[in-house]
Amino acid sequence: MSPLTGIAALQERIQRLEDHQEILGVLAAYGPAVDSGSADAVAELWTGDGSYTYSLGDGEATLTGPEDFRGMVHGPSHQKIIAEGSSHFLGIPDIRVSGDTAVATGYSMLVRHRDGTDPGYYVDRLSANRWELARTGSGWKVTARTNSLLDGRAASRQMLAKAGSAAL
Amino acid sequence: MSPLTGIAALQERIQRLEDHQEILGVLAAYGPAVDSGSADAVAELWTGDGSYTYSLGDGEATLTGPEDFRGMVHGPSHQKIIAEGSSHFLGIPDIRVSGDTAVATGYSMLVRHRDGTDPGYYVDRLSANRWELARTGSGWKVTARTNSLLDGRAASRQMLAKAGSAAL
Amino acid sequence: MSPLTGIAALQERIQRLEDHQEILGVLAAYGPAVDSGSADAVAELWTGDGSYTYSLGDGEATLTGPEDFRGMVHGPSHQKIIAEGSSHFLGIPDIRVSGDTAVATGYSMLVRHRDGTDPGYYVDRLSANRWELARTGSGWKVTARTNSLLDGRAASRQMLAKAGSAAL
Repeated sequence: MSPLTGIAALQERIQRLEDHQEILGVLAAYGPAVDSGSADAVAELWTGDGSYTYSLGDGEATLTGPEDFRGMVHGPSHQKIIAEGSSHFLGIPDIRVSGDTAVATGYSMLVRHRDGTDPGYYVDRLSANRWELARTGSGWKVTARTNSLLDGRAASRQMLAKAGSAAL
Repeated sequence: MSPLTGIAALQERIQRLEDHQEILGVLAAYGPAVDSGSADAVAELWTGDGSYTYSLGDGEATLTGPEDFRGMVHGPSHQKIIAEGSSHFLGIPDIRVSGDTAVATGYSMLVRHRDGTDPGYYVDRLSANRWELARTGSGWKVTARTNSLLDGRAASRQMLAKAGSAAL
Repeated sequence: MSPLTGIAALQERIQRLEDHQEILGVLAAYGPAVDSGSADAVAELWTGDGSYTYSLGDGEATLTGPEDFRGMVHGPSHQKIIAEGSSHFLGIPDIRVSGDTAVATGYSMLVRHRDGTDPGYYVDRLSANRWELARTGSGWKVTARTNSLLDGRAASRQMLAKAGSAAL
């Protein structure tokens, strides 16, 4: 092995490690951004045409692009949640990188505070999460995130079952 | 320092980083596998003779080997839990690698959905976790996982107290 | 690029990766230490003059230095919590390293067990967390941790909003 060959091989391994670490950082940045009402910081986690699909009733809704993300954060429903106290709490995700794209699969909980006669904290939403990401000129960005409530619907189990596959 | 010596030193540091990242990936893969009922994917996280010990009543029970793991996933109790909606939710683990073995210590919550007159999500089980792992020809695998309910039993605190020790 | 130049560049990238991994390890070690009543292990996560500020009523309280940390762990309030069963549960943190200092922003939940007529597990406290750390001769240590309850107080949202900034 020549030193140069060795260096090229190490560079590749380091790049893979950096990819995983950066992607973990993108996911970890979501909660603080959204729970503090930092609309621009939320929007910047996605690519310009990135999307976020989440469960709404028995179906789902989709936000696309920075205006949608900022509108969600500034909207009355989200403002009420964060004013009362909230955490978009993420566990450790399963991250699979394939070249310039990646998929992270995991869970999120929306944990909220309530005042009143029975004050305390409770899990308001529990979702399976699929984050699709791409390497861009300004780092890894989310191209499509899908959240599916873990309330018994089959789509959530199907999403989780895909975690280990290379499907991108 | 000669370039070659430098490269050997870097290789070791990269290997340690990769070990941690891989082990985090093994733990992160458990939830999506078990909550989607992917019995083979669950079994493949362990070595062929790997074990999983968990609290049962005031005592404990142990599964050993892929048939046991597949049987647990396919069993009526687990099938009911995932059909209703569940997350085996893991926080960030304390990972200690020592050569070809490792110990990860942390927490898991089984968060479940209930329908009925008081629908919502609740923490059904909260456990201290000790994952013992080994480097194998197909990556890091779990050799022994022990979950101990955080319901006041002393064994759980004793398990957590061992996290920082090098004991392997 | 000469091999040596290449090695120096790789060393820097590896160092950054190690910094993140070590800092994640410091945070991950907190729960097992505090939930097992390992007072020395808790104290050793901080520098000798490190501090921990947390919400108390509508205000806050601060512990400073190892005697304070050991006193907290050995105190009757904490001893009761861990005897009944508890997890100081952490999600994935947003880690920003700048030379020899770092800030990690994230969430913690104190999940507890209760016996009695309605036995089970519940979220007793939910906090925004800001961990300030420094590189020391014995690894990364916490210089100042601040926990702010997510019960609607503005300070918690302000803390989370600072996660993405370089402010150190």
